[in-house]
Amino acid sequence: MGAGSSLLARYDDVRGATRALAAPLSPEDCQIQSMPDASPTKWHLAHTTWFFETFVLLPRGDDAPFHPGYGYLFNSYYETVGPRQVRAERGLLSRPSLDEVLAYRAHVDEKLRAAIAQGLTDREHELVTLGLHHEQQHQELLLTDVKHALSKNALQPAYKPLARPTSKPRPLGYTQFDGGLIDVGHDGAGFAFDNEGPRHRVHIEPFAIADRPVTCGEYLAFVEAAGYQDPVHWLSDGWAFVQDRKLHAPLYWEQRDGAWFEFTLHGLWPLDMDAPVTHVSHYEADAYARFAGARLPTEFEWEHAAQGADIVKGRYADREVLHPVLTGEQDAGLFGNGWAWTQSAYLGYPRFAPAPGAVGEYNGKFMSGQMVLRGGSVATPPGHVRATYRNFFAPSARWQFTTIRMAKDA
Amino acid sequence: MGAGSSLLARYDDVRGATRALAAPLSPEDCQIQSMPDASPTKWHLAHTTWFFETFVLLPRGDDAPFHPGYGYLFNSYYETVGPRQVRAERGLLSRPSLDEVLAYRAHVDEKLRAAIAQGLTDREHELVTLGLHHEQQHQELLLTDVKHALSKNALQPAYKPLARPTSKPRPLGYTQFDGGLIDVGHDGAGFAFDNEGPRHRVHIEPFAIADRPVTCGEYLAFVEAAGYQDPVHWLSDGWAFVQDRKLHAPLYWEQRDGAWFEFTLHGLWPLDMDAPVTHVSHYEADAYARFAGARLPTEFEWEHAAQGADIVKGRYADREVLHPVLTGEQDAGLFGNGWAWTQSAYLGYPRFAPAPGAVGEYNGKFMSGQMVLRGGSVATPPGHVRATYRNFFAPSARWQFTTIRMAKDA
Amino acid sequence: MGAGSSLLARYDDVRGATRALAAPLSPEDCQIQSMPDASPTKWHLAHTTWFFETFVLLPRGDDAPFHPGYGYLFNSYYETVGPRQVRAERGLLSRPSLDEVLAYRAHVDEKLRAAIAQGLTDREHELVTLGLHHEQQHQELLLTDVKHALSKNALQPAYKPLARPTSKPRPLGYTQFDGGLIDVGHDGAGFAFDNEGPRHRVHIEPFAIADRPVTCGEYLAFVEAAGYQDPVHWLSDGWAFVQDRKLHAPLYWEQRDGAWFEFTLHGLWPLDMDAPVTHVSHYEADAYARFAGARLPTEFEWEHAAQGADIVKGRYADREVLHPVLTGEQDAGLFGNGWAWTQSAYLGYPRFAPAPGAVGEYNGKFMSGQMVLRGGSVATPPGHVRATYRNFFAPSARWQFTTIRMAKDA
Amino acid sequence: MGAGSSLLARYDDVRGATRALAAPLSPEDCQIQSMPDASPTKWHLAHTTWFFETFVLLPRGDDAPFHPGYGYLFNSYYETVGPRQVRAERGLLSRPSLDEVLAYRAHVDEKLRAAIAQGLTDREHELVTLGLHHEQQHQELLLTDVKHALSKNALQPAYKPLARPTSKPRPLGYTQFDGGLIDVGHDGAGFAFDNEGPRHRVHIEPFAIADRPVTCGEYLAFVEAAGYQDPVHWLSDGWAFVQDRKLHAPLYWEQRDGAWFEFTLHGLWPLDMDAPVTHVSHYEADAYARFAGARLPTEFEWEHAAQGADIVKGRYADREVLHPVLTGEQDAGLFGNGWAWTQSAYLGYPRFAPAPGAVGEYNGKFMSGQMVLRGGSVATPPGHVRATYRNFFAPSARWQFTTIRMAKDA
Repeated sequence: MGAGSSLLARYDDVRGATRALAAPLSPEDCQIQSMPDASPTKWHLAHTTWFFETFVLLPRGDDAPFHPGYGYLFNSYYETVGPRQVRAERGLLSRPSLDEVLAYRAHVDEKLRAAIAQGLTDREHELVTLGLHHEQQHQELLLTDVKHALSKNALQPAYKPLARPTSKPRPLGYTQFDGGLIDVGHDGAGFAFDNEGPRHRVHIEPFAIADRPVTCGEYLAFVEAAGYQDPVHWLSDGWAFVQDRKLHAPLYWEQRDGAWFEFTLHGLWPLDMDAPVTHVSHYEADAYARFAGARLPTEFEWEHAAQGADIVKGRYADREVLHPVLTGEQDAGLFGNGWAWTQSAYLGYPRFAPAPGAVGEYNGKFMSGQMVLRGGSVATPPGHVRATYRNFFAPSARWQFTTIRMAKDA
Repeated sequence: MGAGSSLLARYDDVRGATRALAAPLSPEDCQIQSMPDASPTKWHLAHTTWFFETFVLLPRGDDAPFHPGYGYLFNSYYETVGPRQVRAERGLLSRPSLDEVLAYRAHVDEKLRAAIAQGLTDREHELVTLGLHHEQQHQELLLTDVKHALSKNALQPAYKPLARPTSKPRPLGYTQFDGGLIDVGHDGAGFAFDNEGPRHRVHIEPFAIADRPVTCGEYLAFVEAAGYQDPVHWLSDGWAFVQDRKLHAPLYWEQRDGAWFEFTLHGLWPLDMDAPVTHVSHYEADAYARFAGARLPTEFEWEHAAQGADIVKGRYADREVLHPVLTGEQDAGLFGNGWAWTQSAYLGYPRFAPAPGAVGEYNGKFMSGQMVLRGGSVATPPGHVRATYRNFFAPSARWQFTTIRMAKDA
Repeated sequence: MGAGSSLLARYDDVRGATRALAAPLSPEDCQIQSMPDASPTKWHLAHTTWFFETFVLLPRGDDAPFHPGYGYLFNSYYETVGPRQVRAERGLLSRPSLDEVLAYRAHVDEKLRAAIAQGLTDREHELVTLGLHHEQQHQELLLTDVKHALSKNALQPAYKPLARPTSKPRPLGYTQFDGGLIDVGHDGAGFAFDNEGPRHRVHIEPFAIADRPVTCGEYLAFVEAAGYQDPVHWLSDGWAFVQDRKLHAPLYWEQRDGAWFEFTLHGLWPLDMDAPVTHVSHYEADAYARFAGARLPTEFEWEHAAQGADIVKGRYADREVLHPVLTGEQDAGLFGNGWAWTQSAYLGYPRFAPAPGAVGEYNGKFMSGQMVLRGGSVATPPGHVRATYRNFFAPSARWQFTTIRMAKDA
Repeated sequence: MGAGSSLLARYDDVRGATRALAAPLSPEDCQIQSMPDASPTKWHLAHTTWFFETFVLLPRGDDAPFHPGYGYLFNSYYETVGPRQVRAERGLLSRPSLDEVLAYRAHVDEKLRAAIAQGLTDREHELVTLGLHHEQQHQELLLTDVKHALSKNALQPAYKPLARPTSKPRPLGYTQFDGGLIDVGHDGAGFAFDNEGPRHRVHIEPFAIADRPVTCGEYLAFVEAAGYQDPVHWLSDGWAFVQDRKLHAPLYWEQRDGAWFEFTLHGLWPLDMDAPVTHVSHYEADAYARFAGARLPTEFEWEHAAQGADIVKGRYADREVLHPVLTGEQDAGLFGNGWAWTQSAYLGYPRFAPAPGAVGEYNGKFMSGQMVLRGGSVATPPGHVRATYRNFFAPSARWQFTTIRMAKDA
């Protein structure tokens, strides 16, 4: 019952936070999908609701689905559950309307609150908990996806207008760590995604990790040194990537009459040379680090360095400013502000086994072709990340709040 | 003054008709774009308005544009006027909102009505007239584009729900025409697009033209005779087209448990074997005609046959049923119901010269790679088509209300 | 018997000419295919042989095929005959070797000579005649295809090394023609492809046609006037074409240190400003003509002007120089040197019917999406073209010896 | 001097082996390139020669290049060295001819033999050694590339005709290994590629590895159990891969009238159910292992198991049969026969640094998006692989002699 009431409070918090993120957006804003990797806000609102309905409510057998067609429309990638809307065409679903999707949310919320009040089995409790963490991941995607969509509009509309704050970074330094046999991965206390475990031992060499992310000014030096034109800095795939797409700067950077600007959730800002560079691909992060005489950390170096760091103080999605900045000491830490690309491929840990059932499709099947990111960002809900948390994206992905945290051999 | 007041009445009619077509649609419906060839309803509403503002109001010098960014967003393809939104990304413009676009319409309407009241130059009068015919073309596209967009939704939503009426076709017959030297093209009396002239002479051979369009039942015989699997019926490009896209029936036909259905603006209907087959490409129309021992007419055969036909009685967009049917005698005529694919490539007539200025981009530059269609459809506004009217689409286009009108050598 | 001996002589001539064209090439040269539209020399040698074997020898029933697998490998596009090698992968057929293909040719030649000696039916005589004209078409393709293939080699190897001759064009003038009702198309006397008939009447307006093709110097003025950067000159499809492919000059033109060169079958030549511009797409020919205040002729204007012109004197593939030049008076005529793009789409003439059987696939099924060219080129075998001869290619095609012959309204 | 004479002998051996591999092929066979990832035999012959000329001979300053254009044609991917032939168009280089390339080889061999006789610097000695290992890698590619090219020919020609031997596999068993802290990577004694080091410690868990590769019969059970139709077995990328390409069996498997065949370097063989399955992608290997209740080994598990295994006895490219078989006990070992896909991404080892200069492009820049394979194959030259040897390919690659070696947690 204590568990139930605390779960209920958490349920209300998380579900309310999603609605709050959508609140500044019009029905039209909630409709648009600017690339296959991104989803419309409305779809995020519906899909996260479908998750609870499909994995918790319907198996209880009390009710029919809210709408017989929603299972098809709002399943993301659960092959086990059935066929679904083509991913690249989520933006074509003008029906149900935003209002209807909000009604769907209200309906499922009411049912789920009742179920919690009634008492859940342990498995249901686990699935609701998983659903809430799942919804928090979609909160982050909602912000990064709508940013990408709004960026396609020549009017450069803001999600929420706000003036640019001024960053004040410390000089770049490195923190040393000894090598040796360390334990990594989640130990099972409290919630974690299946891909964070099992906890196991890895051997690492002595290393050092930067005490803040790379800034826009530092990255601009790479741009101005023709870093995007010289293959010597790049992985072969990265070189092909920037050549094919004719890239010459991070996503959302734009030069007008010689001055650099950056499109943000708060509108077009003059580029702040002292703020962290963000929206770079793994390829760009890797190339910059090589250019700067450093390298990216492995995910285990990062995790080792993050043990004991203050997670709570990081800059997350509860702040007014939804963009990485370095306005205070805590902004330089390993948590929050921007995800750090690591040099680790996203693979299963020793003895990793996907969760049973359809939710086993959550993580394991993506363990191919992606790189691990660590630490959370300014779009991550507070309380969501952990030292063992493994985010993952294709090395070409640029629309997340990715940043560059350098490392060195000690 | 008579001209002014009649123009004003016509202006109000046409502009009001566009708004009326959008009225059943939500802001979300008006947002979506399902393929590069189609545009969102909201974009049609704005672009047709931009046309009047750009070509009539702004050259008068009275005012600044309603919004400095709209020229970029709502220019369609006028290279002379300036750069513009990428065509395939019109559906990403969540801003301006539908309400803002309607305000833009109201603003331009007010200004243009004032200008008409004040008196227009002859050139302005011509341009307003052109703008109204232009807007009528977009009314047709609005319907075909939104139909395509709604069809992408597994819920198969209706633009306007309506039950299927029952067609009663006459037996297929042919009307004979003598050959000889005939005059074709517009003679300059009343409005016509530049591509309809100059009027000129062509020599044709005796021919016969079908007295009604091909029905779904007739076309289904082709489908069931494995017509889509036998290259002998097809143009080489057409065969490649149906093979690449794995086509086996007209667009919007769907077979469920052995029964055929058709997605329409009124929802999913059981296929009416007696209604005209529609939404076929030129390739399919050509292949069917060959299969049936006939051929498509040339555009001049069609035009010759249409001289003197009753244009007004045709089935246009003012009817309740927005789908081709054969419920009355006039539905079988050459005008309305569905556009007839011809076997004529869309090319300029002898001594054709595009109109001067940016509006010269209206027709002439598209005279490559397209086929001529004649006669108008159930989505064409009443009063819009003429015997000399030349519609044109790529031979692969299927989302217009295209039909098959067969012809034969006499 | 007279027919037989004259057919035999012609057979030996044409077949020998193909081998002679391949003679300067190594087995490796004969192997390569540089794009799906082009074929390897070895494939041309085999396919033209397969044509005689398949359509003449095998139906006689005397013999089995030379090799059971060749039907699959060397069928081009005859759906009626059976499945075949993917067109884009003809260059992967290292087996049979060049020597084996030459042995195949010798075998079929022996059998066919015997059949001719023995006496052919009328139908067989027709098919052998068709096969010889077919082979002549492949002779032209052999040259244009190998030119394209060799051009992909940075060593810029020559088919046959030769120094550049110097052109001396006359000043550009126009010849006037009256309009009226004229007869066009082949009248059935002597060989013609099915697409050249039936002879029929068309009405044309008075016009004038240029008395020589456009020169490289004239075309360079278009290039230097930023003609490739200004959409005002271009058809919409043409503008998209040059933008997408980043074109700025004809195929095979190359600028080195400010000087222009042209890759030819004789190696890299300095561009001769006085020679005809060649290897332009229909889009470029059309854009240039518009830039120059003229237009392309229709195919019927061209045919009308060509009635009575001296076909024999034209510059064809029997010359030493396999590149368009203007070294003598006859080089300026309508025949030979380079194919003239017309503004006519390639469509069937009134009452056109494809030939019966598989050879009916020869022409008719390509009557979509292509433009007509007239007059022959320096790669056309002598004796192959006629005033009624209709060549056809996609408007984007640039690897044929295409030229620009301008026309005007009179 | 001892070093010199032994290097010379090795040089002659390796260079001669390449020529011997090309000996059964015609000039046409040596010309063809069937996909961008593969290269023509002639190109392999030239590129390996260019390597010695560019990195050893030219820096000595004695001579000009054999041909000024070859640097452009035969550079593979060394950005530092200069621009080069587009990779996908290597098959278009009919010039130089095969004979000219063999002359190039003879020329460089003569010069290099003279240089060895004269005495090399240590660095030159290293580079010659690297060049020989490099050439051995191309020997393997020569075989796999020409196999792929020949497979595109419907005649299904053999590289060397040979009848199918009969495999006799042992029952599948597993060998157990303890976990713990182990040393992996090359220790610097003798030649190794830079990517094999530095030697370092990794911690592994107890595991078991299969005592032979998976057979065709075992894999066919997966095929027949609709393994390619059920997403539950597949990584998400793998599922997309097999869906997009409509795969349903390993590359080169073909079903005719219900019976399975396999295209090999020796022609089309009936599938031997007892031979190792080969030419599977990483995705297929991973899916099969999951289907079979096992998994792929990590590269360190494999390396640990391979310590002390008999490398020499493996089945390499010096055997008559160039296809994986299980005809003797040693064929079941970890070395030779077929490369084992591991579940390890190809990444740099701790403190890995690429070799200095252009040869530093050899390995490091490919450390993205690829998976590690271990053990060598029937196309690997004898003496080429080591326990620490890391081969790497994209997870979609199927044209190498890849096999499935399963592992399990102990």
